[in-house]
Amino acid sequence: MNFCSQCGRPVTLAVPADDDRPRHVCHSCGAIHYQNPTLVVGCIPVWENRILMCRRDIEPRRGYWTLPAGFLENGETAAAGARRETLEETGATVADLTPYLMVDIVHIHQIYLMFCSRLLAPDFHPTRESSEVKLFEEEEIPWDDIAFKVVEKTLRCYLKDRISGRFVFRTDKIEKRELVK
Amino acid sequence: MNFCSQCGRPVTLAVPADDDRPRHVCHSCGAIHYQNPTLVVGCIPVWENRILMCRRDIEPRRGYWTLPAGFLENGETAAAGARRETLEETGATVADLTPYLMVDIVHIHQIYLMFCSRLLAPDFHPTRESSEVKLFEEEEIPWDDIAFKVVEKTLRCYLKDRISGRFVFRTDKIEKRELVK
Repeated sequence: MNFCSQCGRPVTLAVPADDDRPRHVCHSCGAIHYQNPTLVVGCIPVWENRILMCRRDIEPRRGYWTLPAGFLENGETAAAGARRETLEETGATVADLTPYLMVDIVHIHQIYLMFCSRLLAPDFHPTRESSEVKLFEEEEIPWDDIAFKVVEKTLRCYLKDRISGRFVFRTDKIEKRELVK
Repeated sequence: MNFCSQCGRPVTLAVPADDDRPRHVCHSCGAIHYQNPTLVVGCIPVWENRILMCRRDIEPRRGYWTLPAGFLENGETAAAGARRETLEETGATVADLTPYLMVDIVHIHQIYLMFCSRLLAPDFHPTRESSEVKLFEEEEIPWDDIAFKVVEKTLRCYLKDRISGRFVFRTDKIEKRELVK
């Protein structure tokens, strides 16, 4: 951030009064520009014991497999965002979304919130963001070609819980060293 | 948002290529400025069956009672943010934070994440943000003077679960008509 989004003048990093950390501050109009973590919402879409995954056709990690997920937008609930991302990336409609795993990824200022969900029908297709969309049995999951550590964590957590059938909400975090596969 | 925070030139609202909603776009440098919901993190700090609340000494809702909560900052996990806010607003240190209630407040672009927690010691005090900090028995809770609907929801949910002793993670949402008390 170089300029004030309110008045267009240059901003500087300074600790505002009654604050304890540097912010982008505009000395012309007085605006303080806060920067906060972004919420990424996504799904584990399940159909008859198989999990729907998509092969990324966009960067980063083009060509690698992922679960549908993306930035929550203003104007939608977290569950609605996860449903929208699933539709956009796989063409599939999901229902019964239950919050399942929240993952802090502090060094990139993101929090992932992944929902358990079921496919309403086995209808899905490649999309602008996904070159391939496919249902995977557990033993078919392409572990060596997963796009992001958070997706691998989510899948492993889900498959472990599936043994007992108890999907309890939980939290996890990903440290910087873990991110690059 | 009026100006591009990258180059300082005016921005306009336009739907970027491969997008489906208007964003603040800079036609000078090409930057697209996304705006996403903010995560508010907070605690239900408990000491021997009593709940720690604070009386707001800042706007909005100065003079009303609340649970400690505030915007998650870059560089911290959600639990660390909730712990920090509790310390800042009440002077108290909490431990054993467990995610408890997530509340979508779509029309103000916020998601609340409230944690169950226990006070490490009954040590707390007024702070810059709170004129009064106090432990409440259930029957003492100042229901008519609660600052925000999300705080009332959190307290009612917690007190109900306390009867069974089972605090299961859950979600809720607040509609626009509910917000103003």
